[in-house]
Amino acid sequence: MDQILVVGADVGGTNVKFVVLDASGRRLRQDDIRTDPRDPEGTIRRLAQAVQALEPTAKGTQVAVGLACAGIVSPVTGCLDRSPNLPGWEGCDLRGCLRTAFGTNLCTVANDVNAALYGEYRHGAGRGGEHLVMIALGTGVGGGVLVNGQLHSGHADGAGEIGHMTLQLDGAPCTCGNAGCLEAYCGSVGLVRRARELIDDPASSSEWRTMVTDRGASLTTRDCSLLAEGGDATALAFFAAAGRRLGQAVASLVNALAPDRVIIGGGVAQAGDLFLAPCREMVAVHVMSRAGRETPVVAAELGPFAAAMGAAALAAESLAEAGEDSP
Amino acid sequence: MDQILVVGADVGGTNVKFVVLDASGRRLRQDDIRTDPRDPEGTIRRLAQAVQALEPTAKGTQVAVGLACAGIVSPVTGCLDRSPNLPGWEGCDLRGCLRTAFGTNLCTVANDVNAALYGEYRHGAGRGGEHLVMIALGTGVGGGVLVNGQLHSGHADGAGEIGHMTLQLDGAPCTCGNAGCLEAYCGSVGLVRRARELIDDPASSSEWRTMVTDRGASLTTRDCSLLAEGGDATALAFFAAAGRRLGQAVASLVNALAPDRVIIGGGVAQAGDLFLAPCREMVAVHVMSRAGRETPVVAAELGPFAAAMGAAALAAESLAEAGEDSP
Repeated sequence: MDQILVVGADVGGTNVKFVVLDASGRRLRQDDIRTDPRDPEGTIRRLAQAVQALEPTAKGTQVAVGLACAGIVSPVTGCLDRSPNLPGWEGCDLRGCLRTAFGTNLCTVANDVNAALYGEYRHGAGRGGEHLVMIALGTGVGGGVLVNGQLHSGHADGAGEIGHMTLQLDGAPCTCGNAGCLEAYCGSVGLVRRARELIDDPASSSEWRTMVTDRGASLTTRDCSLLAEGGDATALAFFAAAGRRLGQAVASLVNALAPDRVIIGGGVAQAGDLFLAPCREMVAVHVMSRAGRETPVVAAELGPFAAAMGAAALAAESLAEAGEDSP
Repeated sequence: MDQILVVGADVGGTNVKFVVLDASGRRLRQDDIRTDPRDPEGTIRRLAQAVQALEPTAKGTQVAVGLACAGIVSPVTGCLDRSPNLPGWEGCDLRGCLRTAFGTNLCTVANDVNAALYGEYRHGAGRGGEHLVMIALGTGVGGGVLVNGQLHSGHADGAGEIGHMTLQLDGAPCTCGNAGCLEAYCGSVGLVRRARELIDDPASSSEWRTMVTDRGASLTTRDCSLLAEGGDATALAFFAAAGRRLGQAVASLVNALAPDRVIIGGGVAQAGDLFLAPCREMVAVHVMSRAGRETPVVAAELGPFAAAMGAAALAAESLAEAGEDSP
């Protein structure tokens, strides 16, 4: 058998992260290039060049490529439908661009959170599970669902919009235009808004007020978690409230789906147990089935390259299937 | 090929409803017998006798049997784990009892709402769908999830507890001990409690007060829907509020799972569009994906024999699989 390389890439609003693996799944290389928000075709062409520059053996070798992208991605048509992060890429035939740039038909596309979930399933916090739910806490809140070891896309590839589950009618305002969505409580936009609101609460600590005032427009959830790690009561209560909202959503998903595990990823999740401990408490109380109350709620393990690793894992599978078709 | 009969039964707290179908799925008979809440084995033996009395050809014919039961039923072990409706049946090896009583190994067991969902999928409101969610509104609120044409049981068969999704932290009290569950807003226990509370609201109509007072302890949601059908403003607002809560849950499930269709069944659902119209309005607003906002939310079609029909459909499938194994 010839040498085989598997490429996985994750297109973000500013960078394309990518990994190059050998046939056994060993990571040979990882790097990133700039995303051109107006030129998907050019960006993907530069990705192919960057892979070849890093890994010259890619020339003349069988290559399988997986690409993850934020937004509604159809694994069937290979196109990107709607993408809040990359409006200039909407409507792009991602798979067609990959085929041209890499000169192979073994190209797979997926939504970025689905790819991250698949990465965690094959290589990280989801190993050994069969049914998984992932929630990615970033600027927004994304999600993914895996059933029987397969990513669940649902009707018109619309599944996984866990960030827009309504936790409270007429609740906190969400960037989507609705109110009370999980994202409004646990995405960084909503968290930073709430952090600022708390300076009007007379019960808030002077450290909290100072932090919010000093950091001004550059305030991030990382500032809040640093204060919480130092034991500030306002900061601890702030994360506990957000963690309970996350737990409300997780408990509802466990009630409906009974996953083997729930994986929490994304930048905001780096606050770790500040978030996850109150979330787990909600699951222990608000899930109906006894077994479900003990559903592990775990942090993602693969870090910022999770979606690229997952895209590579999906590509490797298409390779295996192609091999079965033409033995 | 010999004649084949397929039996589907649905064990409720008071009755066992059953259907007898021929190999082509045509319904030959339907009837019910009393449930003995303390004797699952005896009840299932009487079921087998009732089937044979109704359909004498069952003797000497290959028979496949499906049994649906409220509670946590394991299709793998064939046992009933936990059942709020039939505590005296908990721990029973349902499949073992069926095998003894009917003298066949072709026996299948399922949770009652899962069976009803499967019935609707094969014969009713779910035909042609691939991914479905069902919510059954009765005394309590049950649910079922079908993915890729297969019932989703989840970890430890815990999936489908849609009635205990938390719609409101510290919300209306639920029979499960928690607060703010879907069941507390849309199950008949919660609805009747709310109906009584409304007589203290000065805005409530005099017809509403009279109804609640006159019906006393026998008040049902049917009384409320009769008043609503007559145009009473309090009754209409009562169902609109419940329908919005149902819609909050349905929208969250559509966001997470993107089913092709959501099916609403159970006795309370007979209030029909009083419930379903406000539910659909919520879905049109609170779902993120454009296609998801148009997800059909439809009434179940099979009525009280849905679970028995679904249990028969599951049994017919086990028959087909057994046929494939021994061609």
